[in-house]
Amino acid sequence: MKRTSFAGMQCSLARGLELIGDWWTPLIVRDLFLGLSRFEELIEDLGLSRNLLSARLRSLEKSGIVARFPYQDRPRRYAYRLSSAGLELVPILVALTAWGDRWALPKEGSPIVFRHLDCGKTFTPALICPECREPLRAASIEALPGPGARARRGTRIVGRFLAHRPRRALPQDR
Amino acid sequence: MKRTSFAGMQCSLARGLELIGDWWTPLIVRDLFLGLSRFEELIEDLGLSRNLLSARLRSLEKSGIVARFPYQDRPRRYAYRLSSAGLELVPILVALTAWGDRWALPKEGSPIVFRHLDCGKTFTPALICPECREPLRAASIEALPGPGARARRGTRIVGRFLAHRPRRALPQDR
Repeated sequence: MKRTSFAGMQCSLARGLELIGDWWTPLIVRDLFLGLSRFEELIEDLGLSRNLLSARLRSLEKSGIVARFPYQDRPRRYAYRLSSAGLELVPILVALTAWGDRWALPKEGSPIVFRHLDCGKTFTPALICPECREPLRAASIEALPGPGARARRGTRIVGRFLAHRPRRALPQDR
Repeated sequence: MKRTSFAGMQCSLARGLELIGDWWTPLIVRDLFLGLSRFEELIEDLGLSRNLLSARLRSLEKSGIVARFPYQDRPRRYAYRLSSAGLELVPILVALTAWGDRWALPKEGSPIVFRHLDCGKTFTPALICPECREPLRAASIEALPGPGARARRGTRIVGRFLAHRPRRALPQDR
């Protein structure tokens, strides 16, 4: 059963999810980030099927999330590492892990703790507005239409809604 | 076809994904955040089936992501809003939207732009280490075992890996 494609949706969240591809991807990105690199290691760690992992890795290569590199010559064998889009996904997944810690903590406590190498401290990531450096809360975020706002499947109402919402003059427009 | 459950995995990323439940959830959270609230609006906007949406909403209620409230008395009808776990998901989804803008931008440009009500500026969210206030990059994040680190399905190797990685003395431990 193929799930609905989000690729045609005029929404960068939906399109980003489509690129990520499926539910296993965040865990594959986690594993590559934590230092695993070989097909067999990913299979053993995650317990998913070989067919599924192999299809996933091919599609993640195409999306620029994962790159393949040879680690042995005869016979030639490949391993995997994160590429640019995958590396940029890591801090977001660390934020999602912190969210998981808050809402689905195992009874033994956090399985993982993160340390920031630049300052040496363990941390829980924070999402901020880089303009004023204050933490972001849902209530302080307003959505405005961008140049690509459209009303289509996946944004049938919100697209209209955003498109017709007058874009107020913003302080930085002045 | 039910996908593999991540609920038993000793990993807060996997458990968080399990709570989110499926691929439609981020778009349902997006819609509720953008101001939609009724079942029919979500159906029209997203174009998913009534059965699927209704199953999704029930499970999101149980997870504390969505809350149901009556908006009409005779006949009694309910609408939906984000509850605590859902509201805390919003900034993370805004970060994922920015990632989607970078790696899967529609040719017409960003469909959505975010404005921070506290400072009035449009922004792209930044993930920082709250200890030193510097932006987080994958290369500057180290993973350490937490009290809940275990080697099991879903963390068969990384669990072992983390559990045996000596937890170095951290600056804040001194």
